[in-house]
Amino acid sequence: MISTEKFIQDCLLVRSQSPLVHNITNYVAMNYAANALLAVGASPLMSFYEKEMDEIVSIASALTINIGCLDDNEIAGMMAAAKAAGKYGKPWVLDPVGAGASKARTQISQDLIALKPTIIRGNASEIACLAGAIVEKSRGVDSSMASDDVVEAAKALAKASGSIVSMSGATDYITDGERVESLKNGDPIMSRVTVMGCSATAVTGAFAAVDSDPFDAALNAMAMWGVEGEKAAKLCGGATGTFAVKFMDMLSTYDPKEDALLIRQ
Amino acid sequence: MISTEKFIQDCLLVRSQSPLVHNITNYVAMNYAANALLAVGASPLMSFYEKEMDEIVSIASALTINIGCLDDNEIAGMMAAAKAAGKYGKPWVLDPVGAGASKARTQISQDLIALKPTIIRGNASEIACLAGAIVEKSRGVDSSMASDDVVEAAKALAKASGSIVSMSGATDYITDGERVESLKNGDPIMSRVTVMGCSATAVTGAFAAVDSDPFDAALNAMAMWGVEGEKAAKLCGGATGTFAVKFMDMLSTYDPKEDALLIRQ
Amino acid sequence: MISTEKFIQDCLLVRSQSPLVHNITNYVAMNYAANALLAVGASPLMSFYEKEMDEIVSIASALTINIGCLDDNEIAGMMAAAKAAGKYGKPWVLDPVGAGASKARTQISQDLIALKPTIIRGNASEIACLAGAIVEKSRGVDSSMASDDVVEAAKALAKASGSIVSMSGATDYITDGERVESLKNGDPIMSRVTVMGCSATAVTGAFAAVDSDPFDAALNAMAMWGVEGEKAAKLCGGATGTFAVKFMDMLSTYDPKEDALLIRQ
Repeated sequence: MISTEKFIQDCLLVRSQSPLVHNITNYVAMNYAANALLAVGASPLMSFYEKEMDEIVSIASALTINIGCLDDNEIAGMMAAAKAAGKYGKPWVLDPVGAGASKARTQISQDLIALKPTIIRGNASEIACLAGAIVEKSRGVDSSMASDDVVEAAKALAKASGSIVSMSGATDYITDGERVESLKNGDPIMSRVTVMGCSATAVTGAFAAVDSDPFDAALNAMAMWGVEGEKAAKLCGGATGTFAVKFMDMLSTYDPKEDALLIRQ
Repeated sequence: MISTEKFIQDCLLVRSQSPLVHNITNYVAMNYAANALLAVGASPLMSFYEKEMDEIVSIASALTINIGCLDDNEIAGMMAAAKAAGKYGKPWVLDPVGAGASKARTQISQDLIALKPTIIRGNASEIACLAGAIVEKSRGVDSSMASDDVVEAAKALAKASGSIVSMSGATDYITDGERVESLKNGDPIMSRVTVMGCSATAVTGAFAAVDSDPFDAALNAMAMWGVEGEKAAKLCGGATGTFAVKFMDMLSTYDPKEDALLIRQ
Repeated sequence: MISTEKFIQDCLLVRSQSPLVHNITNYVAMNYAANALLAVGASPLMSFYEKEMDEIVSIASALTINIGCLDDNEIAGMMAAAKAAGKYGKPWVLDPVGAGASKARTQISQDLIALKPTIIRGNASEIACLAGAIVEKSRGVDSSMASDDVVEAAKALAKASGSIVSMSGATDYITDGERVESLKNGDPIMSRVTVMGCSATAVTGAFAAVDSDPFDAALNAMAMWGVEGEKAAKLCGGATGTFAVKFMDMLSTYDPKEDALLIRQ
């Protein structure tokens, strides 16, 4: 079960410490993800320029890498940033957007996983694809997993990679390979607005910056995300333009203590 | 005249089939265009990475290429994607943003038109420029067209290219070179919000994915677009921030049967 | 003191002339900055493609360069555009985002300042960094400036560069090296929404396009910006999603004569 106390603590730490989160994310998500980080109290920095990755990662409190829009220059920046995160001991979150949709996406995801992300945050099909690719390679497990095996796939990916796996969907699952926690907040309208997942990844970075336990960081970030999404959904009558605005409003004004009571597992 | 029945059918097919629309579009438009596609019920994918273009186009139901922000990497992606669309027989829509504003824009537009887009969607000055450049080259027609000749230019471009031409403005015109349909919905505030045209292109791709007749797809997409824009304009009092939100709300909640009655030709 | 008459005149000129403002800005800011320009009545064009920079700058009324997201292609576009602005005598505004955060950012900022921007618009830490780097180099001034020396740093940077310096913060300062004007409008919530500074830079470009006195252009643009931000802040109850929408609403509907009365210096 989630610790309500720890949840509140993480939320308040993001606000009080305002961690600098360095994001390499796709062009679709950059604006909304930066605003989401600001809304929850963190300080965003968006850059993928290879030549400054080492310096930028060295001053940031966490790094997030989202492979949404690939480009050779951006890939070079991603690899440099992930290596710098290892060098400086900074927590980092990988969002393997579209892994499985093309060979290039699966490959870059695997290359980045080899650099040991603290947390891998993706949807069920991305996690299933990577569990197949990575686990098969390292342990010979069958890669063709049925969709209801996806929690097992997430566990296998966590074990094989050494990363916490945070998998979003109607139910979110967070696992370290042994322990599995589920979160049932959120609303279907969240899948009708773009970059919800990418922005959740950015905010997971903010929580990882203030909580040295990456399992708790991933869990608390997604719990907050789902609760605020649910609250915003009630204010928009199914209209997605208003939802995107109200969700940002919720992120920027939420009360951690009150919202802790809304978490459903 | 537009067929109300066919209009309703296309709108409902986009919702029921949720076609995957692959978009190469500019950085300004990416977020809003992705949200517009989600709002109307389609599934957006944004990528211009040359190395995955063949795979991505092969799994998509339609492709849209908007040349808004040029870059040599992105141009390579555009050419690869357009070729893949031809190879896999996927409908694709070209938005020649700023054709005429620079030699590079006119050239890349011509190079892409040579790859046979299903639909060319642009504003009057872009269409006039390309009609001049392409038609002159292929048929010796005078390239210096007066602005009130722009419907004739659109017809000439459609004939010379073999593409449906969908031209937006105070009145929208859709033509295959012979038949011309006009649409009079919309509101002047739409020209005071960025990426309205780029997003209309993305949504035209969704309609082309579900309607094998590209003339009807272009016509029905623009009819829906104009009607929703008009409805949103009534809710915003001339304020453009609110317009952008309300327009997305309209796209995500419209009733095709009711809105069919609002189309003005 | 600001001239109320000149303020009103500049605001109305932006609306009546609708100057074409060419922006090289970061991916985070592109959409919001383009909408801000449209909202105030200007016409935005976003491109960093080196091969068309000369042509695009030649048809634009002003240029703005924001180094937010660096990339070698984009840097090449920035340098080409800045040179073209010099060649065609177009006013241009530099926003040295993150100068000081990495060697690459400080260097490209210095390279661009050597090309004589009309206006340098940044926050206090960027201005302090560049004052240190540029002034030290040219005049031997101590580069380690305390934060309360930042107005002196701005003056020194203006003198050394020959540019107007427009520095944003709780109080904004505009200086040519001798004269210093301050502006006290705005609201703290503006620092909790991304790309406020980048968009202010774009709008400064619009004012520079219609006012041949760059000091007045910078001053009047920032005065308008602060007043509209303050008005929007009152409508959003601390919620940042709504603030971003209402601020755009204010930009698109403000009355220069009424708002001139709200300026606080």
